[in-house]
Amino acid sequence: MGTMTRAPKEPQQDRSRATRRRLLEAAVSCLAEHGWAGSTVSVVAERAGVSRGAAQHHFPTREDLFTAAVEYVAEERSQALRALFPASAPADRRAVVTAVVDLYTGPLFRAALHLWVAAANEDQLHGRVTELEARVGREAHRIAVELLGADEAVPGVRETVQGLLDMARGLGLATLLSDDTARRGRVVAQWALLLDEALRT
Amino acid sequence: MGTMTRAPKEPQQDRSRATRRRLLEAAVSCLAEHGWAGSTVSVVAERAGVSRGAAQHHFPTREDLFTAAVEYVAEERSQALRALFPASAPADRRAVVTAVVDLYTGPLFRAALHLWVAAANEDQLHGRVTELEARVGREAHRIAVELLGADEAVPGVRETVQGLLDMARGLGLATLLSDDTARRGRVVAQWALLLDEALRT
Repeated sequence: MGTMTRAPKEPQQDRSRATRRRLLEAAVSCLAEHGWAGSTVSVVAERAGVSRGAAQHHFPTREDLFTAAVEYVAEERSQALRALFPASAPADRRAVVTAVVDLYTGPLFRAALHLWVAAANEDQLHGRVTELEARVGREAHRIAVELLGADEAVPGVRETVQGLLDMARGLGLATLLSDDTARRGRVVAQWALLLDEALRT
Repeated sequence: MGTMTRAPKEPQQDRSRATRRRLLEAAVSCLAEHGWAGSTVSVVAERAGVSRGAAQHHFPTREDLFTAAVEYVAEERSQALRALFPASAPADRRAVVTAVVDLYTGPLFRAALHLWVAAANEDQLHGRVTELEARVGREAHRIAVELLGADEAVPGVRETVQGLLDMARGLGLATLLSDDTARRGRVVAQWALLLDEALRT
C-alpha cells in the first residue's frame, strides 16, 4: 500500500463502487442503442468517462461487463417496481400489469434483447446469458406473483402469470422498431381485465 | 436471345423459380443458425448450391435477399396454418392457439428475430423490416381471428387476439437459448382456457 495508506479507505471504496455503477449503466445504454456488435469495453469506458484500464480492472472481458450490466440494471428495476406497490396497500391489478409490462419496454429490455440474440450465436455468451435470463425471469415471476396477489397453489395460476410475462416480452419486442405505445395500452387494458377474472376464481 | 431461343421458355422460368426458392429457404436457415452477422449473400448461395452471380441476379443486395426470405417463408407458414384448419369444420381453440404459437417457435421466427434486432441498429434494414413485420403481423392477426372464430365487432376481442400474438412472440423469444417446450405447453394450455372463456362472451 505504501503512500496509498494516506487516503482514507472508505472514500476509495465509494469511488470504486461509483465507477463500477457508471460503467454498468453506460453498458446498458450502449447495448440498447448500438446493439452487441457496436458494444465494446472501450466504447463503454469512454461513455462512462472512465479509463480503459480502470474499466478492465472492474470487468476483464466484454462478456463480464455486459452480463453484469444487464443483471445490475434488472435488479435496480425490480426494486423500483416493488417500491411502486408497498405491501401495506392492496394493489390495483391493472396498474400492476402496466408496471410489469413497462419492465419490458425500456432500454433495459432492449439491451437484454440484444445480448439474448447475440448469445444465440456466440459460444462465450450462450451459457452465461442463458443462466442470467433464467435468474432475471424467476425474479420477475416472483415479483409479479407477489404484486398481483396470485395464489400459485391454485391450479393454472402459475401458468397464468407466466403467460403474462411472456406477453410482456412479446410487447417489448413489438416496441423495438417503432412506437407501439397506443396499441400496447389497449392490449394491456384488455388482458388486465382477463387476468383479473382469471385470478378471482 | 440468339442461341438461347432453342431452350423452351417454360422450363427456364421453372428453373429460375426453383433457384429463387432454394435461395430464400437457405437464407432463412442461415439467418436462424448464424444470425445477421454470419449471413451474407455468398454464404447463402453456397448453401443453396447456386453461383454467387445467379444469387445476385435474383437479389442484388443482402437486404433484398433476407427480407424477401423472411416474407416468403412467413407466407408459406401462413398457408400451411390455414390448411391445418379447413373452414368447413369448427376448430378446437386450444389446437388453434397451439398452432399459432408454433408459428413463433421454429426457424422462421428465429430468423425473423435476428433480422428484427439487426434492423434496430442498421439504417438500410430499419424501414424495410418495420414494414415487413407490420405486414406479417397483420396477416398473422387475420389468420388468428379467422381460425379462433373471433368476432372483432365485440369490444375487447381485437385486443384479446393481439395479446395472444404478443404472448406467442414472447414464447418464441423464450425458446431462443434453451428448450422451453414443456413450460410452453403448460402456458399455452392455460391461456387457451382463458381465451376460450374470453371469446365465449
